[in-house]
Amino acid sequence: MSYDKKLVVGIFGYGVVGQALFQVLGHTPSLQSTIKKICIKHPKKPRDLDPSWFTTDRNDILNDDEINVVIEVTDDADASFEIAKTCLSKRKAVITANKKMVAARLEELVQLQQEFNTPLLYESACCASIPIIRNLEEYYDNDLLRGFEGIINGSTNFILSKMHQGGLTFEAALKIAQEKGFAESNPALDIHGHDAASKLCILLAHAYGVLLQPNELVFTGIENITPFDISYAKSRNCQIKLVAQALKLENGKVVSFLIPRFVREGQLLYQVKDEFNGLAITSALADQQFFYGKGAGGFPTASAILSDLSALRYDYRYEYRKLLQQEPSVLDQNVHLNVYISYDHWEQLPIQVFEKEEEYFSSFNRHYRKGTISLKTLAISDWWKKPGVSLIVCEDSIAESLNTIHHFSESHFELAA
Amino acid sequence: MSYDKKLVVGIFGYGVVGQALFQVLGHTPSLQSTIKKICIKHPKKPRDLDPSWFTTDRNDILNDDEINVVIEVTDDADASFEIAKTCLSKRKAVITANKKMVAARLEELVQLQQEFNTPLLYESACCASIPIIRNLEEYYDNDLLRGFEGIINGSTNFILSKMHQGGLTFEAALKIAQEKGFAESNPALDIHGHDAASKLCILLAHAYGVLLQPNELVFTGIENITPFDISYAKSRNCQIKLVAQALKLENGKVVSFLIPRFVREGQLLYQVKDEFNGLAITSALADQQFFYGKGAGGFPTASAILSDLSALRYDYRYEYRKLLQQEPSVLDQNVHLNVYISYDHWEQLPIQVFEKEEEYFSSFNRHYRKGTISLKTLAISDWWKKPGVSLIVCEDSIAESLNTIHHFSESHFELAA
Repeated sequence: MSYDKKLVVGIFGYGVVGQALFQVLGHTPSLQSTIKKICIKHPKKPRDLDPSWFTTDRNDILNDDEINVVIEVTDDADASFEIAKTCLSKRKAVITANKKMVAARLEELVQLQQEFNTPLLYESACCASIPIIRNLEEYYDNDLLRGFEGIINGSTNFILSKMHQGGLTFEAALKIAQEKGFAESNPALDIHGHDAASKLCILLAHAYGVLLQPNELVFTGIENITPFDISYAKSRNCQIKLVAQALKLENGKVVSFLIPRFVREGQLLYQVKDEFNGLAITSALADQQFFYGKGAGGFPTASAILSDLSALRYDYRYEYRKLLQQEPSVLDQNVHLNVYISYDHWEQLPIQVFEKEEEYFSSFNRHYRKGTISLKTLAISDWWKKPGVSLIVCEDSIAESLNTIHHFSESHFELAA
Repeated sequence: MSYDKKLVVGIFGYGVVGQALFQVLGHTPSLQSTIKKICIKHPKKPRDLDPSWFTTDRNDILNDDEINVVIEVTDDADASFEIAKTCLSKRKAVITANKKMVAARLEELVQLQQEFNTPLLYESACCASIPIIRNLEEYYDNDLLRGFEGIINGSTNFILSKMHQGGLTFEAALKIAQEKGFAESNPALDIHGHDAASKLCILLAHAYGVLLQPNELVFTGIENITPFDISYAKSRNCQIKLVAQALKLENGKVVSFLIPRFVREGQLLYQVKDEFNGLAITSALADQQFFYGKGAGGFPTASAILSDLSALRYDYRYEYRKLLQQEPSVLDQNVHLNVYISYDHWEQLPIQVFEKEEEYFSSFNRHYRKGTISLKTLAISDWWKKPGVSLIVCEDSIAESLNTIHHFSESHFELAA
């Protein structure tokens, strides 16, 4: 009762993830995976392994017929794509952790997998230790999946947590995150939302068959959130979290965006602390599912790569069913959001920005307005991302009066007595 | 890029789960599964399908060579085992939701799967919509898994939630659970812990390779928990939850039990409300993972069966690696627990029950004591399960001074600079 397929592995990259992976594989002989070679960029860097493990010539892996799995854990999206493409064409299975590459090149990657009938797996590219892609793949029918919402970037969640706990400014919290290793020295990709937007693209492809580039999404980061906003959230028993969400509408289209959001105490996402990730799925079948775990770091990422390796032993592959076998969903921006916008100066907001205004507040330092705004407005403008303006989606993010979300219920599958 | 394996399905049972499954499969054509026949016990019962779907003769399924998958959703553990055994011997893959059967006959079922090289899957038998068994299977090495703790029975969690919310007695809360369909009319299996004990056995087999019968576990239910206990918990910002837990000790053995436990606000398990299930895994790699979802009901169970069907398309099977390829762990009862025991009369407690007593309280109606007690003591006696006595494990359940839990840390996999 075991799979006899033997995996001979070539690795590109020996950074934090590559090193963790090397140790973990050495620790799990029952997986029957052997690392044969590791391709690195800088041969002079001191390493903890015998030099015979390493090569700087990618062909030592690409042209080695014995190697049947290539794991790609570099941080260069272009090189990463070239490696994946070459390997698939040589019918070597590929595992990658590079979310930027997968999100940007997914259409080609799907074609390559079909053309060469060879799998590419990337569970580690999306929330690392959370097995979310494989889970979404199992929602066979488009209509079964009502929606999902998640905290899918650890750096920004760590920063927001610190702002809540310590009343810190964004800059002070970012500094702590960098000191503790939860934010890069160049944190732009995380704090402006690019990293999470790439992950959201991957999720949308597997959830609904929606294929799009990250820059086609409505998204922003957390760099404009102020202690004023945090106080406002606290006074309403909420925390501000950067939430990626997607909802299937009654018209069959999907509304999706990545914007900071008020999350109330008692909700599942409220519990997602510090550098952790969490994702809630709502479906007609399983009702609500919630997955929580570390979304980054050497060992959590290695654990997801391990699970992909394990899956390759029984020839698992993504089917992209909603993309290839069903009518893929498309995004809809004709919805209205309930939002809170705080700002320094009146002129930072366009005139008549709200469809409906509900509340406003003014003080010496900071003002805010609450009301209903069209998602389209956000898609075609960027005043709301500019310094000094902070837009936060309310708890009931889709405006109620305009709410066309398809509410599945048990009666959708009414049972006879 | 799709699997061309066609699944022809025979179903045993057409209760709540069978009916949900029928509708769900009709709704997911892309799974390429066809139901051919449904075997039922009572032909006279009114059904919502054409009679041609049904048979009362099990051989109509067992002897049909076209049927390559049998789904077994009856409530009869003995019949369920016979069906599974016959099907495996005929090399028909089996999916079952019967946790009692799987827990009681796992050793034989593993042998049958090996002998006939045919898979048996039962993700739905353990926390329904939570993909926990498949997840545990991926912890390849015994040592990588530090432990898990979970709320794995929805009925008891619903009852305890109602006792907390409404200050109700156990009996009043049970009545509500029965009215709402969250407890059986004969609730004994749930409230005495038998159902959860079966699930814990299945979890232990996949987590650590420990094979044992439910009655070899130290477990109890919730029927003795009183409003007095609930008030005590509330005053300490805790809820009482029926928690199944397992921890790997430094000596390589595993300590495991299923006993009500104080869970503090802010902990992940605290958020598991009403009829939901939740399970947290702690490991050397992924750190902490948490899974949350519905653990029972027609559609949540059908969703797990769907995921097993999906897995059969790529010939997935459980490997039972810790059982078959590694030295399986064994249970250790030589540990001490921190417990709270409340009771009506002094004589309900044995003399010198505590290794160390920390606190006692006495009032006109109810008394309690807190201290350290050996797990062995609980294993060989039953005074603590008798009416009028309620034993609840403290937050730090394993006594600290005697704590031998193996603390993995990043340094366990120390990385070179």
